[in-house]
Amino acid sequence: MRQVRFRDPAGMVRTGEWHGDAVSFADETYDLDEVDVLPPCEPSKVVCIGLNYADHAEETGMDIPDRPMLFLKPPNTVAAHGDTVTLPAGKEQVDWEAELGVVIGEQCRNVDAADAESVVAGYTVLCDISNRDDQRQEQNWVRGKAFDGGAPLGPVVADPDHLPEDAEISLRVNGETKQSSDITQLIFTVPELIEEISTYMTLEPGDVISTGTPSGVGGLEDGDEVEVEVEGVETLQFSVRQD
Amino acid sequence: MRQVRFRDPAGMVRTGEWHGDAVSFADETYDLDEVDVLPPCEPSKVVCIGLNYADHAEETGMDIPDRPMLFLKPPNTVAAHGDTVTLPAGKEQVDWEAELGVVIGEQCRNVDAADAESVVAGYTVLCDISNRDDQRQEQNWVRGKAFDGGAPLGPVVADPDHLPEDAEISLRVNGETKQSSDITQLIFTVPELIEEISTYMTLEPGDVISTGTPSGVGGLEDGDEVEVEVEGVETLQFSVRQD
Repeated sequence: MRQVRFRDPAGMVRTGEWHGDAVSFADETYDLDEVDVLPPCEPSKVVCIGLNYADHAEETGMDIPDRPMLFLKPPNTVAAHGDTVTLPAGKEQVDWEAELGVVIGEQCRNVDAADAESVVAGYTVLCDISNRDDQRQEQNWVRGKAFDGGAPLGPVVADPDHLPEDAEISLRVNGETKQSSDITQLIFTVPELIEEISTYMTLEPGDVISTGTPSGVGGLEDGDEVEVEVEGVETLQFSVRQD
Repeated sequence: MRQVRFRDPAGMVRTGEWHGDAVSFADETYDLDEVDVLPPCEPSKVVCIGLNYADHAEETGMDIPDRPMLFLKPPNTVAAHGDTVTLPAGKEQVDWEAELGVVIGEQCRNVDAADAESVVAGYTVLCDISNRDDQRQEQNWVRGKAFDGGAPLGPVVADPDHLPEDAEISLRVNGETKQSSDITQLIFTVPELIEEISTYMTLEPGDVISTGTPSGVGGLEDGDEVEVEVEGVETLQFSVRQD
């Protein structure tokens, strides 16, 4: 099953099922254009991983880290499938980064990698939008990564068995493929990430771990239409606006 | 007024008034030992400022930044007045940092410094506990700053008029004064911080801006009893445990 949150035509927020061109809750089914798709979960924090694809680490010219590089996106960064994200004003370079998101299913701490599957609710798709102008000048990537709308997320949380072990991940801008890789390129696996992060932090239901991006990162422009696809999960769509 | 959240003897969570040795809600008054004091607000994010006291910047040997250095503490870091914080395991140096916290009162974005007072609910006291072992090795201070319990906070949100312009800030460990300064030492003022942060992020009611620490930072040890006092606000107390 692929779970979706949406606002139905009567204005009620529902957690229901995704059927590609429709969504359902209880006995009601709606066409996608009848509802507002919401972020599929409500993270108290998004814990992101830098440099976690061998091909992207090479592209940036940075060494492969000996443990996961972590950074944070707070709740204000979350945007939904179908949203138009307003990019931070006055920046030269704001990049896309396609990512596989892991949605946590239960409160947990100090999880061994061997047990990590038990705390995963499912998988989603995320775009880690990155304001390089500021990121390059900051010790901590707050202006660079934590701005409003910097984490479009969704449209679904797919049950773990939907994700192939070699799932392809790709990103298209205005229909043109810019990133194309698969999750066998991950340097630190999902269980390893859960073990490392939960050593320091309690993870809550709905929290998201965003697992890093492959090569092919590049700059967004006003009016761009972005699609991020993870095989077996879904395709996240959003557009961007530069005021 | 100084606002406090607490769990009353019947187990109800109340937002009431602080009277120093007692708390009240509606017609009921309780001695402090009858209730559990909770964090006085529930931040979706704590936005922290590094190197914002002239004396602390000098102590660390770092240059004074030309704009505020920002980092993030997510909700899992929040601990309450009276709590015992378990420090991250196996670290050599975990430091105290006394800070004045600004509690946001309304959802806001792109706030001019001149209007910033209107979005401040009040002031609180915070200890930015810092795991230096990891902080020194990280690009983003996540293991270093975002671990569970790393932001003891409270006990109150004091109305803005309680805070003198030259409020003293001090920290004592086991009764011995370790930090003593006042908020005239702030490099970036509260209105300047609100303007800068809200340029990038929507601030929500209950969010906290932690304004940085003065000189006198040092290492916590198992069993330490910590008091952080901001003149006009209150004294935050907590203890630490190292497993």
